[in-house]
Formats: sequence, C-alpha cells, structure tokens
Amino acid sequence: VSALQIETPAAVVDLDRLERNLFRWQEHCDRVGLVNRPHIKTHRSVAIARRQLELGAGGITCQKLGEAEVMADGGCTDILVSFNILGESKLARLRALLDRVDLTVCADDAVLLPGLSSAAVGAARPLRVLVDCDTGLGRTGVRTPEAAAELAATIDAADGLVCAGLFTYPAPPGVVEFLSEAARLVRARGLAVEVVSAGGTPAMWSSGKLRPLVTEYRVGTYAFHDRATVAAEAATLDDVALTVHATVVSRPAPDRAILDSGSKALTSDPGPDDGLFGAILEAPGARIVKLNEEHAYVELGAEQLEVGQRVRVVPNHACVVANLFDDLVVVGEGREPERRPVDARGRSA
Amino acid sequence: VSALQIETPAAVVDLDRLERNLFRWQEHCDRVGLVNRPHIKTHRSVAIARRQLELGAGGITCQKLGEAEVMADGGCTDILVSFNILGESKLARLRALLDRVDLTVCADDAVLLPGLSSAAVGAARPLRVLVDCDTGLGRTGVRTPEAAAELAATIDAADGLVCAGLFTYPAPPGVVEFLSEAARLVRARGLAVEVVSAGGTPAMWSSGKLRPLVTEYRVGTYAFHDRATVAAEAATLDDVALTVHATVVSRPAPDRAILDSGSKALTSDPGPDDGLFGAILEAPGARIVKLNEEHAYVELGAEQLEVGQRVRVVPNHACVVANLFDDLVVVGEGREPERRPVDARGRSA
Repeated sequence: VSALQIETPAAVVDLDRLERNLFRWQEHCDRVGLVNRPHIKTHRSVAIARRQLELGAGGITCQKLGEAEVMADGGCTDILVSFNILGESKLARLRALLDRVDLTVCADDAVLLPGLSSAAVGAARPLRVLVDCDTGLGRTGVRTPEAAAELAATIDAADGLVCAGLFTYPAPPGVVEFLSEAARLVRARGLAVEVVSAGGTPAMWSSGKLRPLVTEYRVGTYAFHDRATVAAEAATLDDVALTVHATVVSRPAPDRAILDSGSKALTSDPGPDDGLFGAILEAPGARIVKLNEEHAYVELGAEQLEVGQRVRVVPNHACVVANLFDDLVVVGEGREPERRPVDARGRSA
Repeated sequence: VSALQIETPAAVVDLDRLERNLFRWQEHCDRVGLVNRPHIKTHRSVAIARRQLELGAGGITCQKLGEAEVMADGGCTDILVSFNILGESKLARLRALLDRVDLTVCADDAVLLPGLSSAAVGAARPLRVLVDCDTGLGRTGVRTPEAAAELAATIDAADGLVCAGLFTYPAPPGVVEFLSEAARLVRARGLAVEVVSAGGTPAMWSSGKLRPLVTEYRVGTYAFHDRATVAAEAATLDDVALTVHATVVSRPAPDRAILDSGSKALTSDPGPDDGLFGAILEAPGARIVKLNEEHAYVELGAEQLEVGQRVRVVPNHACVVANLFDDLVVVGEGREPERRPVDARGRSA
C-alpha cells in the first residue's frame, strides 16, 4: 500500500519531519539548559512519546489523567499532569498512578489540597505539586506572586505532598517578572523551588531567554506543527509533519471545489486570523472557507483542482485533529506506510 | 454507578428524551406522508439506528461509506449514502456493500458515473442514484433543473445504475420550485421520479409543506438536539437529549470558572450567533466564552459555581460532540446508567 492509496480523509504523519522536529527542539533545550518535558496531548501516541524520551526528554506532560494512564501503560515513568485533579474517582485513579510512576500535578487553589493529600498519603512516593501561576492567559492559576508563595507553603505543609515549584502557560519572555518574584517569595519562606515550568510552542525558540529562572519547558504542537504555529513563526510549512489527506469529490461551480475532509477530519478550530480552515499544499492560492461535518468548501481563485484529485491539507490545529482519528498513517523516505494507533484518543476524562 | 459518578467530561444521553424525539418525528412523518430516513451521522450508534427503524423509519442515511459499513454490520438493510463516491478503493467497498444491502448514493456530476457503473455491474442488485441538487446551500449539487434532468438521463443510461430521483439539503419550503421543475423535466424524458429526498433538522416541522412533491425527509440532529436546533426553534431546551457532563475545576477569579470540558469534549463548532461554546443548564446566565483543548472558560456574571460542582453543558452541535467519544453514557428514568458504543465513531473515510 502506498500513502496515496490510503483512503481519505486520513491523518498522515511524515516521520522524517517529525523526527527532525523532535531532534531540533531537544538540541535547543540541551543547548540553553532547559529540561524538555513534551506535552503528549498533541499526538496522544505512545510510540511518539517514547521517541521524545529516547532523544532526551526529562519526562512527559499530560493534560488529563486518562492520557497519563495510557502513557504509564506505555512505559513512561515521569509524568506531569498539568491540571487540577479533584473528585473521588479521579483521586483514586491519581493514587493508583502515583504508586506506578513519578507523578507531578498542578494546583491553583488550597481547596484542592485535602483531596490531593488524602490520595497521596501512604503511596509509594510523595505527590509533587506545582503552583499553577496565571501570568497573563486568564485561564487557571493564582494571580499574584504573593498568592503563589502562600499556596506553595500550604502544599508543603500537607501530608503526602511536596511543593515542586512553579508552573505557567504560555511563556513569552514577559513572564519572568511574575515568576522570579514568586520564586523569591517561596524561597523567603524557606522552601526550595526545584522546578519552574513554562511552555508553549509559539514562543518555543525564545525560551532560552527564560533561563536561568525557568528550568523546564513544555511544548506539544512542535512535534507536528500546523497553520497556527507556522503563523506564529515557530516553524515553516516545510516543518509540518501532520497533514490531512483529502479527495476532491465535487467541482459544482467554476470557482468551487468540495473536499471530503470536513469538521470531523479538520475540526472547526480557528488558526491564524484569516477565518480559513486549513491550507491545501497542492493549491496554495485556494481558500477553505467553510466546513460541514464531511465537506470542506474551497474557493479556488486562480487554482485548479479536479474531481478525484488527492490533496494534503495543513490543519489549523494539529492537536485536535490527531484526536479525531483512531490511527495515524505514518509515511517516510524508504518505508512502507503503516497505521499507528492514537493510543490515548478520546482520553479526556 | 449513578450518572453523577460518571467521570467528566462525558457525553450523556437521556433515553427518555431521545425516545420522545424519535417518536414525535416519526409521528409527524406518518401524518404528513413523508418517508422518514434519519441521518445516523449524529449518533453513529447502531442501537439508535435500530430504534429509529423499529419506530417506522423507511431506511437510514449515512454521509460516508465507513458509517454505512458499520450500520450494515448492525443489521440496517436500506441505506442512502448521501455523498459522491469515487476512487478505486471506495468503489470496491461500495460494491461489497451493494451485495449486502439496498443501497442508494448521490451524484452531482456525470464524471462520477463510469466509476459507479463499473462498481455496480454484476452486483446482487442495481445501484440506486439520486441527483444531488443545489437548491441554495452552495455546497455540492447541480445548479439548475435542466442540469438535474440531464444527469438523471445519463445515470439511467448507465449499466448497473438506476436513477432513483432527486436529492437536496437543506429544505426550507422555497426549494419546491427548483425540485418541481427538475422533476417535471426528468419525467418529460420518460423517466420516473420515485424519490424526492429533502432534509435538515432546523426546518423539519415545516416539511409537510414540501408534500406531495417531496417523498422522504432526512434529519439527524433531531435525535439529540443542541444549541443550534433550539435556536432554530426546532426544539426547546427540554428536548435536548445529549449533554456533556463537566466539572468545575477552578475558580481563579471572582467572575471566572473553568470547566474540564474543552474543545476535545465540546468542539469549536459554532452554534447560534452569540460566539459562545455551550450552555450550562445549572447556570443559565453564565457564558462559555472560550475553549482550549481541555478547558472551558466561563464568565459567571451573576451566577455562582463552586470548585468540584458537576454541570451539564448543552453543546452547540451534537453531531460532532458524539463523534469525540468512544461511548455515550445513557441514563433514564428507572434504569442504571450504562455505556453504549459510538459504533461508527471516526468512520469518516
């Protein structure tokens, strides 16, 4: 079977580009002195996580417990779950995981600590907790360095928990001020700040400016890249390792083509600020202006596409696309295409 | 296990509401004389398709061959695949399906017919083909009644194919003019117009106005309903059978709550024209203003939500939400919650 006989729509990964993306970033981290802790939410695939670790990653990041369970089953032994964990059943799963692997979680509120503590007491190892700091995103996280130091002290006083340091997302160079003040205040309480964890693919190449304060960096999309990270100039189109292969199924009007890749293949996630839903490599001037579930509407402009033609679409957001497919089709120089499972697909609980 | 012990995020289906939605629509179709051919893209679940058939549906609609294969395995024997089918491997699958079930496909271009014909010749039965008419959507479909009649005649002349009639989507009452002229022109060529198939949940309750011209009607979202169909007044919030159960995981600021249901649970699909990503039944005044993959950002306004609280979110678009989950959790009066597979999840190829 050749890549072009894979039925569309399909999520196709160029292994040579993937390998290059993983390698370059590890090299950067080694050079600037950052621990690389890649986020597996992008690929949700054990084989890729293992390759990231082989190349030198210090551990992995998961967003949800379900992902972490799959990655622990796959042999990952040092996992950060960058989420507030709460509720009886999730805490029981957290405990089971803590007995198997080195585990770190995030917390942004003292209300979470009794649950985390009761899950951790008596486990094979202490539960490491990072203080989630809101340095500008407006999502989760404590909002001042003072609140960070207060929460760090409360964590450290709880049975079974160790305050491992500070956490933020995303991490343009401007986050240094908040984090350095927070670190100073934590240390002023006599506590160590072992880890300062920052992350985000768009600003990945300026992460060296966060040193020496920041100790580790988390990136996910860098494995595949997409329209958003290309627009952010973290990569070029030649670095994009994941494309959705699609077929032109209709040419109903002179300026319109329809592809068989709709929102169940590309998602409705926005990319760069142009309102489009992907870029067609074979027709760079064409515009994917609308999606239904199984149709992409293409305004051709001066481009030409024929019914039956195969095209490769660079999606807006690789992480949500990989999560739609049971398998990724991997291709590469000198190898037969093969299907590889998205092991943690759908594991958002 | 009670529904509230199901871990979040989860896609939860109220079976009593589902049953009521299916029943009311079948009753409407019976009353106005329309064949009900529900679209299974919404639920992708064999059990629900079988229930739709038990209640009186004349067959089912699938958008893709992958869905049709799963539904044929599940016992459905009369399937419309409302898509242009082309390419060697898809035509081979089409042939295999045609040997198993009564099969109809759509076509909007004569260029598709040699492939369809070669797939159908020698099969257990002829392949029925509907002429896809663009009555205003601007997606696929022939653009004039004259083109529809021309294509119908070409289909009818092809070995192995039978022109079964006309097809359109969506179907507000204004489509009657195009379709009646197309039907007149097809008949003027000495061909029968056995089926005129229209569809769309938003206009479903005015479908009686399409009679007697239109013979069958396809609706998908009606099984679950969602913010979009409620906004279109095809249903009320009390009819919504699918909600995403989520947990409040952070209250980082007085006006902000964060849920554990992001775009990997709710999708970024737009709903009504308000830019929001779902409605929280427990906090009707709260606004889900933004999603990341695993986080929903909620502006609380005057509402209050606490860390750890469970909420039910009505999604913008039910069909893409069900496709994210391996299982639906079904609940209902007097029954234990249980997991049921989304059998054709991810089957977009």
